[in-house]
Amino acid sequence: MDIIKVFCPATIANISCGFDILGLALNEVGDEMTVKKVAEPGIRITSIIGQDLPLEATKNVAGVAGLALLQDVDCDFGFDIAIDKRIKAGSGIGSSAASAAGAVWAINELLGRPLSVDQLVPYAMAGEKLASGVPHADNVAPVLFGGFTLVRSYDPLDVIRIHTPKELYATIIHPQIEVKTADSRRILKTKISLGDGVKQWGNVGGLIAGLYTEDYDLIGRSLVDHIVEPIRSMLIPGFEAIKKASMEVGALGCGISGSGPSVFAFSKGLETANSVKQAMEAVYDPLELPYETHVSGVNLDGVRAVGGVQ
Amino acid sequence: MDIIKVFCPATIANISCGFDILGLALNEVGDEMTVKKVAEPGIRITSIIGQDLPLEATKNVAGVAGLALLQDVDCDFGFDIAIDKRIKAGSGIGSSAASAAGAVWAINELLGRPLSVDQLVPYAMAGEKLASGVPHADNVAPVLFGGFTLVRSYDPLDVIRIHTPKELYATIIHPQIEVKTADSRRILKTKISLGDGVKQWGNVGGLIAGLYTEDYDLIGRSLVDHIVEPIRSMLIPGFEAIKKASMEVGALGCGISGSGPSVFAFSKGLETANSVKQAMEAVYDPLELPYETHVSGVNLDGVRAVGGVQ
Repeated sequence: MDIIKVFCPATIANISCGFDILGLALNEVGDEMTVKKVAEPGIRITSIIGQDLPLEATKNVAGVAGLALLQDVDCDFGFDIAIDKRIKAGSGIGSSAASAAGAVWAINELLGRPLSVDQLVPYAMAGEKLASGVPHADNVAPVLFGGFTLVRSYDPLDVIRIHTPKELYATIIHPQIEVKTADSRRILKTKISLGDGVKQWGNVGGLIAGLYTEDYDLIGRSLVDHIVEPIRSMLIPGFEAIKKASMEVGALGCGISGSGPSVFAFSKGLETANSVKQAMEAVYDPLELPYETHVSGVNLDGVRAVGGVQ
Repeated sequence: MDIIKVFCPATIANISCGFDILGLALNEVGDEMTVKKVAEPGIRITSIIGQDLPLEATKNVAGVAGLALLQDVDCDFGFDIAIDKRIKAGSGIGSSAASAAGAVWAINELLGRPLSVDQLVPYAMAGEKLASGVPHADNVAPVLFGGFTLVRSYDPLDVIRIHTPKELYATIIHPQIEVKTADSRRILKTKISLGDGVKQWGNVGGLIAGLYTEDYDLIGRSLVDHIVEPIRSMLIPGFEAIKKASMEVGALGCGISGSGPSVFAFSKGLETANSVKQAMEAVYDPLELPYETHVSGVNLDGVRAVGGVQ
């Protein structure tokens, strides 16, 4: 196998209560990336379709993640990477994570899987560090593992796969304003009250319990964020109206996707998720701000080969 | 039914990462309480064996919890309560919770169950408020429900039962120094760093996932507390030595039970739990401080009638 084309799913990180620890992969939104083994060592980004991003490998998250991996494996050849970038940079649904995790996964495949998926996480995180200044794992973990993932600990790194309820769907609205992850981290407070902490870990416990027991109502009740959402939501035009409209048509809960500006809602069943999409669009249409919406089931596989391998 | 004798289990609250939200009930440690329907309205504590605690109903947690319940139900008679108090007050394994929750559960039984177990929680919390100044639910919830419980939210109150792994055992050492819950709350910081918060909710997520999947290793890795234990452990003589000794003989994890001074360790299997008991005792024997140790499986039933009802 000398060439592989992969689907790199978009992801929702944080998931209201799970700041920096929780994430999930989406089925219907993602990049495609073609990685080719070539004689020349190193990594080259040969083309990027759809987004204006750096081609220089050391300035591109896919390049940086791939180069980090190549430093630790035995490899006397190199890789050309062509990216069909369908997830918009700065959208809050894991654009950089899809590229970083997609690249290391594809390279690992072409190398004959010298590393486990667990072992790939830190290399993908190197790409995230380039993108946001922080090597966070809450987006790259679901890209690599699929489903819901929990980063229990960063030191040592400990990523746990969490059960995904069968009828859970996500609706996402992406207001097309750019919020850089680094900026949206900067506005966070570095101290929180113990009382808010107790509320947050109570909701994390409830969300994890709801996912394992497929208790959709408990999942919804747990989608509460007393710490980050009150601050970051100020950067998202119409956030409260989107949330209210989503809940009125039956969403289980609604919050900021990653560091925003995308907003996600969970629903039980595709039909409700589609109603939520209409409700979100009805809020945004009068604002005359460009936006995109997506409805998606949870991607249980994570990054995967598509369209055959040669 | 005019009289009922109940077993009121001891409980471990907090469970390292789950400050104020997590708890579990024990099989082998608990009070017995006999509650009798009598013509005279109100509640009387007729006897307390084993502890020097107030007999006056308005100053006794069982009395206060029972009186709170009687305010909300239709009842033209009263109750006499006799308590065989085997859980020492101030031990950190839910002495007040056993009395408060036991009393409301027994009275509800004698009344023909007008309230659900869920509905009993706030009345039991009224007893906790008398004991510690804070109406916390992390001990009374496992007394009432059995097993592991999560207080997802206090406002509104939302208690979730969490799956209990079959081979989980607890070992407890109770150094017989008194640490009042109110005092051990006072020394806590009211602000925590966001970074410590992230660690804490990562571990709560890991612990809940570990309980559902019966992943004992994950349960152990998640028994980490970056927020409360570093402060409260200073009040417990030999805490670090107990923890180290417990881990060396195979405990999954070790932390402060409730607000202390009791220390708990979890083990997979009774044999390891017994080895942990010996290891804990070997630390305490040279200190010449009085202590008690307990080994117990998790009580799945919570408070229950014992010895027949009349």
